[in-house]
Amino acid sequence: MVDKIYGIGVGPGDMDLLTLKAVNVIQNADTIFVPISKEGKASVAYDIIKTIIPENKKVVELLFPMSKDVEFLQKHWNNAAEKVMEENGTVAVVTIGDATLYSTFSYVWHIFTENKIDVEIINGISSPFAAAGILNIPLVEGDEKLAILPQGKDLERYLEEFDTLIVMKTNDLEEKLKNLKDKKDNYLVGVVNRVTSSNQKTALGKVDEIDFEPFKDYLSLAIIKKLK
Amino acid sequence: MVDKIYGIGVGPGDMDLLTLKAVNVIQNADTIFVPISKEGKASVAYDIIKTIIPENKKVVELLFPMSKDVEFLQKHWNNAAEKVMEENGTVAVVTIGDATLYSTFSYVWHIFTENKIDVEIINGISSPFAAAGILNIPLVEGDEKLAILPQGKDLERYLEEFDTLIVMKTNDLEEKLKNLKDKKDNYLVGVVNRVTSSNQKTALGKVDEIDFEPFKDYLSLAIIKKLK
Repeated sequence: MVDKIYGIGVGPGDMDLLTLKAVNVIQNADTIFVPISKEGKASVAYDIIKTIIPENKKVVELLFPMSKDVEFLQKHWNNAAEKVMEENGTVAVVTIGDATLYSTFSYVWHIFTENKIDVEIINGISSPFAAAGILNIPLVEGDEKLAILPQGKDLERYLEEFDTLIVMKTNDLEEKLKNLKDKKDNYLVGVVNRVTSSNQKTALGKVDEIDFEPFKDYLSLAIIKKLK
Repeated sequence: MVDKIYGIGVGPGDMDLLTLKAVNVIQNADTIFVPISKEGKASVAYDIIKTIIPENKKVVELLFPMSKDVEFLQKHWNNAAEKVMEENGTVAVVTIGDATLYSTFSYVWHIFTENKIDVEIINGISSPFAAAGILNIPLVEGDEKLAILPQGKDLERYLEEFDTLIVMKTNDLEEKLKNLKDKKDNYLVGVVNRVTSSNQKTALGKVDEIDFEPFKDYLSLAIIKKLK
């Protein structure tokens, strides 16, 4: 039985965005679990940390498939959690971005908590923040309101009311933002794919100036800022 | 004239939450600027990084007073920006949390951009994420919506619609959350003061179970989660 589980956010892509704490815990854990979305597919989180992992460290993949079938997902989450809980010593379960925001870790976190296992979260830099940094724009200032809408859910409803809106967790930003075009002069849009990684892509402008083709990827996000 | 300005988020309080990149840039900058809110008052950001600053490094305070007088504030922001821009070499301007979210850095960032100075943002862990980690609860999962409302602005309006709401940037959380009491059984509330610092305080429960007295401080925040 595992002694302690660290849920570690390894940031959006650049290894140098790991925190000192994350590096320390990863290097000292008995086992490191890395998420994959498909058998045989590389782990984005593993790619971020691979150069800091000591030789001969045990690294184990955890399969978190992409699906809308809740029963199918639940089965995989249970399997993944079992695999981690059967381990001995302390383990690091890594996840891209931060473990508290739309993370694969949250699916197993619940199961660990129900089993009364000691869990500690080590935060990581979340992609919307890194995207704002790379685009060189603040997300929110002063008394501005911010909303994060996965898949752009209810975007129309909040467009007028929020100063900044973030759309993430979709591989079709263009479709989610298409209604913005009627109001394009009121908004500045920044889109970023795989922020801070070696494949990073960015665009910033009015929505109709942006070519969304390079951003058709689940690891893309949009920051929508109301112009004042 | 300054060559390059780094806007660096140093995280919420624990030095180990600095990123590798932040440590590297701080240690190699010619000058480090640290914000204070009052002459003679300690800088929270400086306290986080003081043990990693090399000896004899030039550290300069920047005054960002708390006020609602925009003209008064603007004068101080201009003064602070001038002070940084007059420096030679590369400079690090540090800020608690992340530089893109309600940061003092955003006030001078604009001025640097207008003066066509090279600015690079180094992200830091933001307090709501660290608070969720410490409380051991995810902020959002799956397709949940998140809103960040400074001073709890329009909280009533969004209470039903969002899965998670964050209230920050107020020193009176109790006042901002008082209307929640009528609906207390529908929400879980976590409050954290000075998250990850040596003075950290936390509470988690229904709103009427929480004693807000220890949280009357500007560096407190609340996470409100709709129970399902």
